[in-house]
Amino acid sequence: MENEPPDETPVKARITLVGAGPGDPELFSLKGVEALRAADAVLYDALVSPDLLHYAPEGAVRLFVGKRAGNHAYKQEEINQLLVDFAWKYGHVVRLKGGDPYVFGRGNEELRHAQRHGIPVEVVAGVSSALALAGGQGISLTGKGTADSFWVITGSTRSGQVAEDVSVAAKNEITAVILMGINNLPAIVECYQREGKGKTPIAIIQNGSMPDERILVAEVDTVVSEADKQQVGAPAVIIIGSAVAQRPRDLGAWAASAGNAALRGGDDGS
Amino acid sequence: MENEPPDETPVKARITLVGAGPGDPELFSLKGVEALRAADAVLYDALVSPDLLHYAPEGAVRLFVGKRAGNHAYKQEEINQLLVDFAWKYGHVVRLKGGDPYVFGRGNEELRHAQRHGIPVEVVAGVSSALALAGGQGISLTGKGTADSFWVITGSTRSGQVAEDVSVAAKNEITAVILMGINNLPAIVECYQREGKGKTPIAIIQNGSMPDERILVAEVDTVVSEADKQQVGAPAVIIIGSAVAQRPRDLGAWAASAGNAALRGGDDGS
Repeated sequence: MENEPPDETPVKARITLVGAGPGDPELFSLKGVEALRAADAVLYDALVSPDLLHYAPEGAVRLFVGKRAGNHAYKQEEINQLLVDFAWKYGHVVRLKGGDPYVFGRGNEELRHAQRHGIPVEVVAGVSSALALAGGQGISLTGKGTADSFWVITGSTRSGQVAEDVSVAAKNEITAVILMGINNLPAIVECYQREGKGKTPIAIIQNGSMPDERILVAEVDTVVSEADKQQVGAPAVIIIGSAVAQRPRDLGAWAASAGNAALRGGDDGS
Repeated sequence: MENEPPDETPVKARITLVGAGPGDPELFSLKGVEALRAADAVLYDALVSPDLLHYAPEGAVRLFVGKRAGNHAYKQEEINQLLVDFAWKYGHVVRLKGGDPYVFGRGNEELRHAQRHGIPVEVVAGVSSALALAGGQGISLTGKGTADSFWVITGSTRSGQVAEDVSVAAKNEITAVILMGINNLPAIVECYQREGKGKTPIAIIQNGSMPDERILVAEVDTVVSEADKQQVGAPAVIIIGSAVAQRPRDLGAWAASAGNAALRGGDDGS
């Protein structure tokens, strides 16, 4: 152990890892609200809606530990230790993470570190952008008889390289859902082009579930220049595969869809 | 169109497809609560917590359209049309589906059918058991530098066969998360054995997020007899791959974990 708890602990140290969902504060869970209401301290990430912080008591400590303008406020190891220190100092710490705390959220590292220090940890699942955004844009990742699976892949591995998995997905024509991959888009595209799959349909959903949500639909061969033209940036979910092609065409190739407006009846026409 | 709306529509027809989450009613979203409070009718599935129905107004129509004891109350085509008929008759219909409405939930079929009848549809994402249950059992589907992806596969395709994808996952040593696959467990196991991957670790989480949640951890070669011995049944999520092996061993091979008790600090010991 790097540290020891203070000799006299006036508080009952515990940590709750809470998934904040994809952005829309209304996609937060009842259990998450309950955890925040009982929080003595909250550590939160960049993609967490500020509205959620209002559920914490006024007197609770709030600390931003996310990434802004490309810079991390804290390293992962520092966050791990901050959680422990805050739990010892304040009591109940809520760690609020974008999406689900376990989907590329490094929640497990934080949990294991706290457990090594004898601090009980509870996990509250969240709505993950890996699954939640496609449907709202008319893309069905699954369909009885048409789509039996989808593959969730990080676009940002430790080495900074695109996961080998992307090449396997390309070769086997599996629907790929790539998170945190927008900065590696050219490398992702190459994986498909190397397999001769440049015509594969691809969608990029930016700011999913937020009022400024928008989608770019293209082909692998054209997506880099299109994304460049439209200034697509993070946060974004990339979906590659035939599931994208089944999206109703009249939803538009570059549709804003605040409040799911694009899905209103009659727009479809099919 | 099979039907036409009634000549005089006294109500404003609309449908909200709502994900009820994996079972724990506290993992329901604020937006889901809001939709139910404004419901004139609710159509719900078998895996939806009865507690959620209390959010609907007393006077709202409630109809169970799920599957019990292996029998469907209604065929999918009937449910599609019921949604439309109820919307015309009652106004706002909430379609409450287990997990996320778009993850093997056939939500897209229901949405498209309603749209063809000119009825506006909104989608409220839910916490999917595909992602939400592993973490609570100490299994991290993702890990920086150790696990870059996971593959979500249905264990119940239209033909009743196990998806070809399972074989690809076995061959390529990709972490597979298989939903609705417990009745096809022997066929899933065969996919792995054919690839010489009989020693691959496998976990089955039954009744995930519910008070009677439990997990079976085994190897592919032994899991069928173990599952038989322990009478493992639906609903269950199957996780296959090295991510399972990284689960702390002292959580037990067959651990009940109500309220995440298995994750409390100190149990880990590492």
